[in-house]
Amino acid sequence: MTLACTLHGMLDLRLQEETPPAPGPHDVLLGLGAGGICGSDLHYFQQGRVGAFVIREPLVPGHEASGVVQAVGAAVTRVRPGDRVAINPSHPCGHCDYCRGGRGNLCRRMFFLGSASVFPHAQGMFRERFVMGEAQLTPVDEPEVSLGEIACAEPLSIGLHALHRAGPVLGETVLVTGAGTIGAMCILAARLAGAARVVACDVHERALALARTLGADEAVRSDQVAPESLAGMADVAIEAAGHPGALRTCLTAARRGGRIIQVGTLPEELPFPFPANQVMQRELDYRGVFRAHLAFDWAVQAIRSRRVDVRPLITAQLPLSRAREAFELALDKSRSTKVQVVAA
Amino acid sequence: MTLACTLHGMLDLRLQEETPPAPGPHDVLLGLGAGGICGSDLHYFQQGRVGAFVIREPLVPGHEASGVVQAVGAAVTRVRPGDRVAINPSHPCGHCDYCRGGRGNLCRRMFFLGSASVFPHAQGMFRERFVMGEAQLTPVDEPEVSLGEIACAEPLSIGLHALHRAGPVLGETVLVTGAGTIGAMCILAARLAGAARVVACDVHERALALARTLGADEAVRSDQVAPESLAGMADVAIEAAGHPGALRTCLTAARRGGRIIQVGTLPEELPFPFPANQVMQRELDYRGVFRAHLAFDWAVQAIRSRRVDVRPLITAQLPLSRAREAFELALDKSRSTKVQVVAA
Amino acid sequence: MTLACTLHGMLDLRLQEETPPAPGPHDVLLGLGAGGICGSDLHYFQQGRVGAFVIREPLVPGHEASGVVQAVGAAVTRVRPGDRVAINPSHPCGHCDYCRGGRGNLCRRMFFLGSASVFPHAQGMFRERFVMGEAQLTPVDEPEVSLGEIACAEPLSIGLHALHRAGPVLGETVLVTGAGTIGAMCILAARLAGAARVVACDVHERALALARTLGADEAVRSDQVAPESLAGMADVAIEAAGHPGALRTCLTAARRGGRIIQVGTLPEELPFPFPANQVMQRELDYRGVFRAHLAFDWAVQAIRSRRVDVRPLITAQLPLSRAREAFELALDKSRSTKVQVVAA
Amino acid sequence: MTLACTLHGMLDLRLQEETPPAPGPHDVLLGLGAGGICGSDLHYFQQGRVGAFVIREPLVPGHEASGVVQAVGAAVTRVRPGDRVAINPSHPCGHCDYCRGGRGNLCRRMFFLGSASVFPHAQGMFRERFVMGEAQLTPVDEPEVSLGEIACAEPLSIGLHALHRAGPVLGETVLVTGAGTIGAMCILAARLAGAARVVACDVHERALALARTLGADEAVRSDQVAPESLAGMADVAIEAAGHPGALRTCLTAARRGGRIIQVGTLPEELPFPFPANQVMQRELDYRGVFRAHLAFDWAVQAIRSRRVDVRPLITAQLPLSRAREAFELALDKSRSTKVQVVAA
Repeated sequence: MTLACTLHGMLDLRLQEETPPAPGPHDVLLGLGAGGICGSDLHYFQQGRVGAFVIREPLVPGHEASGVVQAVGAAVTRVRPGDRVAINPSHPCGHCDYCRGGRGNLCRRMFFLGSASVFPHAQGMFRERFVMGEAQLTPVDEPEVSLGEIACAEPLSIGLHALHRAGPVLGETVLVTGAGTIGAMCILAARLAGAARVVACDVHERALALARTLGADEAVRSDQVAPESLAGMADVAIEAAGHPGALRTCLTAARRGGRIIQVGTLPEELPFPFPANQVMQRELDYRGVFRAHLAFDWAVQAIRSRRVDVRPLITAQLPLSRAREAFELALDKSRSTKVQVVAA
Repeated sequence: MTLACTLHGMLDLRLQEETPPAPGPHDVLLGLGAGGICGSDLHYFQQGRVGAFVIREPLVPGHEASGVVQAVGAAVTRVRPGDRVAINPSHPCGHCDYCRGGRGNLCRRMFFLGSASVFPHAQGMFRERFVMGEAQLTPVDEPEVSLGEIACAEPLSIGLHALHRAGPVLGETVLVTGAGTIGAMCILAARLAGAARVVACDVHERALALARTLGADEAVRSDQVAPESLAGMADVAIEAAGHPGALRTCLTAARRGGRIIQVGTLPEELPFPFPANQVMQRELDYRGVFRAHLAFDWAVQAIRSRRVDVRPLITAQLPLSRAREAFELALDKSRSTKVQVVAA
Repeated sequence: MTLACTLHGMLDLRLQEETPPAPGPHDVLLGLGAGGICGSDLHYFQQGRVGAFVIREPLVPGHEASGVVQAVGAAVTRVRPGDRVAINPSHPCGHCDYCRGGRGNLCRRMFFLGSASVFPHAQGMFRERFVMGEAQLTPVDEPEVSLGEIACAEPLSIGLHALHRAGPVLGETVLVTGAGTIGAMCILAARLAGAARVVACDVHERALALARTLGADEAVRSDQVAPESLAGMADVAIEAAGHPGALRTCLTAARRGGRIIQVGTLPEELPFPFPANQVMQRELDYRGVFRAHLAFDWAVQAIRSRRVDVRPLITAQLPLSRAREAFELALDKSRSTKVQVVAA
Repeated sequence: MTLACTLHGMLDLRLQEETPPAPGPHDVLLGLGAGGICGSDLHYFQQGRVGAFVIREPLVPGHEASGVVQAVGAAVTRVRPGDRVAINPSHPCGHCDYCRGGRGNLCRRMFFLGSASVFPHAQGMFRERFVMGEAQLTPVDEPEVSLGEIACAEPLSIGLHALHRAGPVLGETVLVTGAGTIGAMCILAARLAGAARVVACDVHERALALARTLGADEAVRSDQVAPESLAGMADVAIEAAGHPGALRTCLTAARRGGRIIQVGTLPEELPFPFPANQVMQRELDYRGVFRAHLAFDWAVQAIRSRRVDVRPLITAQLPLSRAREAFELALDKSRSTKVQVVAA
C-alpha cells in the first residue's frame, strides 16, 4: 500500500492508502522524489475546479514531479532501478493536426497528469509511489542536482515555452510582471535566451528580492510605480501574475511592434476595457502560452547543467503526509514561492 | 492654379485654388489620376480627427492615389511625362530602429501623406496637381490597367500586409469579418496567398455579393448567424470591420492556436469584456496591422498583372469638384465600397 | 487473387498474382484508382535502388495513388464502400523528436509506402487491390475530380512543401529549374502561394509549353540562355530538375539574400566546385526538401477545389497490366510528364 | 597632423602623417581607443585584396574600433568630449530594397569603413584621430569596460548575427568549427543565446583552451577526431574557420533537418565535391552570414553589461606605431587571437 494525496472537492484534501498498479512491460514503478504545488493544484484545492475542469471523482493532484526508479517493466531500456528521473506530465497523441504541426501542447487528445480535463481524471503524482510509461522519463545522472531541482523542470518549461513563443530576444528588454514561480521561471528563461535587460515587477518585496537573485536587472514594486513611467520600455512584456492589472501594465509597457505574452491565468472577464485599438495602432502581438511542449526537454537539460539554477525558488519542502500544510503555505505568496511535497 | 479638396474641421470640406510648388531636381509634378476615399479620410471629414490626430490647419486628405506625370525635375530618371504612376504615400526615415529592423510602417519619423499625425500636416493628394519625390512613384506600363485600379494599390497593400502578419496560409481557412474596402482587400489577399478556404461575413447583402465576386468561398450574414456556429472554424480570423462585434466573432471563430488579425479601427474602449484568458488557454495570437510597408510594392505588381482584380470594388468615381458628394456616398456602406475622386 | 506490379531487381519488373490481406478493424480494402510513376519508382526500375535503398526482396512500387473503397473494417468511421480517396503514403511515428517538432517527414521511424528504405520493404500501391489504415485516407466527394487528379496529391505535396520551406513569396520572383512533374508541381505551388512572377526553365519544348499552361510567366530554354543573363533575378530559385547544371543556374540566379531550394535528386558528388563562399558573401539560404508532411493535406484540398489544376500534367494512363510499358514511357521526358497506371 | 596606418598594396604597410578633416555639424572628432585587426585586414595586407575588392589607392584599414571623443560638431547631441564610444563601421543607405526589408547588411549602396569595396575607398580607423558621423557612435558609460573590449563589438556582432541567422537554439547543440576570433565570438554568442551544449573544434591547443574559457562544453582537436564520430551531433554547425575541411565537418555533423552556418571566408572553389544531394535527403539548411546588422547594437549592450566577456580573446595590444608588428603577430594563429592597435 502507498500513501496518496487526494482532492475530493473544494478544500477537501485527504491522505489515503492505495495500491499502485503493477508496471506493464513499458512501464516504470517510481517513488516520489519531489512534487511542486502549482497554481492549478491550488485552484483545485480552493475551488474544486480550474475554470471548466471540475473535480468529478477523487483526483490526485501533482504534475511537477521527480521520481526514483523502483522497478521496471521487461521492455524498459532507458532507465534502471535507482535512477533519479524527471517526469513529463504531458501525453500528446502524436497524430492529431496539432501534434503533426509541432504544437503537441494543444493536442486534441491530450492526457495531462493531475488534471480533471478528462474523465476518468488523469491522476497526478502526489503519492508515495506510482507507475509511469518509460517514454515520460528522463534520467538525471548528475548527483549534485537534487530531486527538488529536477521537479522544477515542468514549471521551468513554461517559462521556456513563453520565451519560445516570444521569439528571439537578443538585444531586447523583457518585462516580467509577477515574480511568483511562473514569473521567476520567465525571468530565468529570458536570461537564458540572451535578453539584454530583464525587468521584473511584483507587489511582494520577497518576490522582488528573488527576481534580483535570479538575474533580473531591475525589480520594481508594481504598486509604487506609475504605469506610464514604463510606457514603451519593453520589446517583450510577459504577463505572469495572472492579474488584470499586470496585463494592463504589459499593454502600456510594450513598445510599438512589441510582443505581449500571456502566461498567467486571468479571470474570464477582464474588469477593464481592453485597448484593442492599440493592438492595431501600435501593431502589437498578444500571444498566449498554454503549458509547454518541446521546452520540457530543454528545461531538464538546463537544470542538469545548472545553466539555469532553480534552487532559490524552492522555498519549502514538506513530507507528503503534511500535504495540506504544504498547500496552505503555497497559497501565501508573501511567504513562499515554490512549495514541494517530498517522500516522508 | 489648381483645385484642392481641403478639410478645415468637422464636416468643413472646401474646394479651393492653390499654386502647386515647382518640382525640385528629384521631384515630379503629377496630375491626379484617381484618389480613393479611405476610412481615415471619412473620420477626418466627420469628426475632424482620427483618434489622437486632430486637424489643426487645413488638411488636404487623400493617400490612395494614382497620377499622371506632367513634368519632372532634372535628376529624375525613372519616370517621364505621360507616365501613369502608383504613388506610395509612406515616407519612413530609413534610419530609426523600426526602419532598420524592416518595419518601416512603424517608423519613428514617419511622414504619411494626407495625415494630421504631424504638424505642419502631411498634405494629401485630393487635388488636381501636386508634387511628389520620384522615389514614391512606380510607373504602370500596362495600358489596360486603369488609373482607378492603380489607385487601389494602397488599400490592397493593407490587405497584403495583413496576410504578411498572419503568416503562411497554405491549406488554411481564413475568416474575414467585414467586406467593405479593407475586408475586400483582405479577401483578395487571402486568395492570392493561397488560403484553402476564405469565408467573409458582413451585414450588407451588397458587401456579401462583392465578397463572393472577389473569391470568397462563403459569405455569411453576420447578423443572421450564431457566433457559436463559427467556433473554431478559422486558422486566421481577420477583423476588418472596425466593429467590436466583429472582433467578438473573430475571437470565437479562431481555432486553438489560431491567429486573429486586427486591421479595422476599433473604439479605444471595447464595450465587452475581452476574453484575455482565452488567449492563454487556446494559445491564440492576436496581431495588429498598422498601414503597410513592403506590401505596397507587392500590391502594385499584383494590380499590374491583374493577378488581383480590384475592379469590382470601385463602385463610383466622381470628379474632384464633387468631392463632398463623393465623401457622403462613401459614408453609405449600403451603396458603396470604394469611392474615388478623379480629375474633372 | 489480385494483380500486382513487382520489382525484383534492376529492370526486372513482373506482374504477379497475390492475395490481399483481410482488413483489420481500422483498415480499408481499396481498389486502385490511379497510381503515378515517380522518379524514385523509375530509379528502382532502372537501377534496382534509390541511392542507399536497395531492393532486397520483391518490391511493389507506387506511393502516388488514389483508390476506391471496397470494404471497411468494423471500427472504420470516416470512409464507406464506394468512396474515392486520396492515400497518404507517409506513416511517421508521431513520437520521435522530429515528429514532436512538427517535421514528421524526417521521422526516425518513418514507414513510407513503396520504398526499400526499411526491411521488410514497405510495399507500395501498384496493385489492383490493397489494404490501408483508415488514417491514411481522405475521401474526395467532388465527382468532377478524377481518380487521376486525386493521385496527384502526393507529387503536388512536394511542390507545396518546397514552397513551405521557401517561406512567403508574396511580391517575389520564383525560378523553377526543370519542368517535369516535380518542377511543374513547384510552378503550381508558387502560383498558389502568390508569387508575383514565376519563371520556368527546361531543355524540352514540351515541358516549357506545359509550364506556360500551368501559369509560368516565362518559360526559358535552359540550353539556350547564358546563366549570367539570369544573375540575381530570383528571390527563390528551385532546383527541381535533379541536374547539377540546374543547381548551377539556381546559384547564379538567386539574388543576394535569396533562397535556393533543393527538391531534385542530385548525384552524391557534384561535378563542379560548389561556390560555398558565395553562400557567405551573398548571404544565401540553401535549403533541402525531403518528401512532404502537412502539405499532403493542403494538396488534397487544392485538388478537390481545383484551385490547383493538375490535369495538364497527366500525359498518359495505362492499365496496370501494361505497367512495364508505362514505366518505359515515363522514362522518356520528351514524351511524358506524369504517367499513371490505372485499374484495367 | 595625425598618424595613420596605410596599405599601398601587397605587404606594403606604411605609417604616415595626415590632416584629419574638421568635423561637420553632425560629426565627431575621435581619438583611437583600440582597433582590432580582422581577417579581412590581413587579406588586404598579405594579398592587397579581399576577393574582388582590390586596393586601388592607399587604404587605411580597420573597421573594429573604439574611440574617445575629442570634439563634436554643433548639432551633435548624443556624445560629449571625453566619452568613450563604440563605432559602427557600417553605413547602409536606409532606402534600398534590402534596407527596407530589414537586411541592411546587404544594402545595395553600403559604405563600410576600411574597405576597398567602393572607390574612392572607405577609409578605416587605424589612425590616431578620425572623424565620424554621430549616428555611428554609442557611448559606453561603464568605466570598468576597457577600450579594447569596446573595440570587440564589431567582431562580436558577427557571432551574434550568425546566431540570429541560425534561429533559436534553446535546448540545442551548437558546433563551432574554428576557434579564432570569429569562432570564439560564435561560441560566446551561442552561449548567450541559450544553446544547451556548445562544442568547439580547432587544430591549435591554444585556441581550444580559449574556447573552454569562453564557455564551450567541449573542445575537440579537429585533426585528431574522425569526422564520422561527429555525425548528426549538431542542431547547428557553424563554419567559422574559413577552411574547406571545417565545412566538411559541419556537413557531417549537422543532424537531419539541421542548420549549417557559413561565417568563414572560403576559397571560391571548394576542393571537395559538395554533397548537394545530402542537403535534400537530410533536409538541411545551409545559410550564409555576411557582416552583421542589428547585432552591432546587441554586441555593444552585451559588452557593456559584461554579460559577454570578450577579455580572454584580446591576446595583444600594440601601439599604432608598431602596426606592422601587430599585423604579423595577428597572422600567427598559434600565438594570437585578437591583436589590437592602440593609441601610443
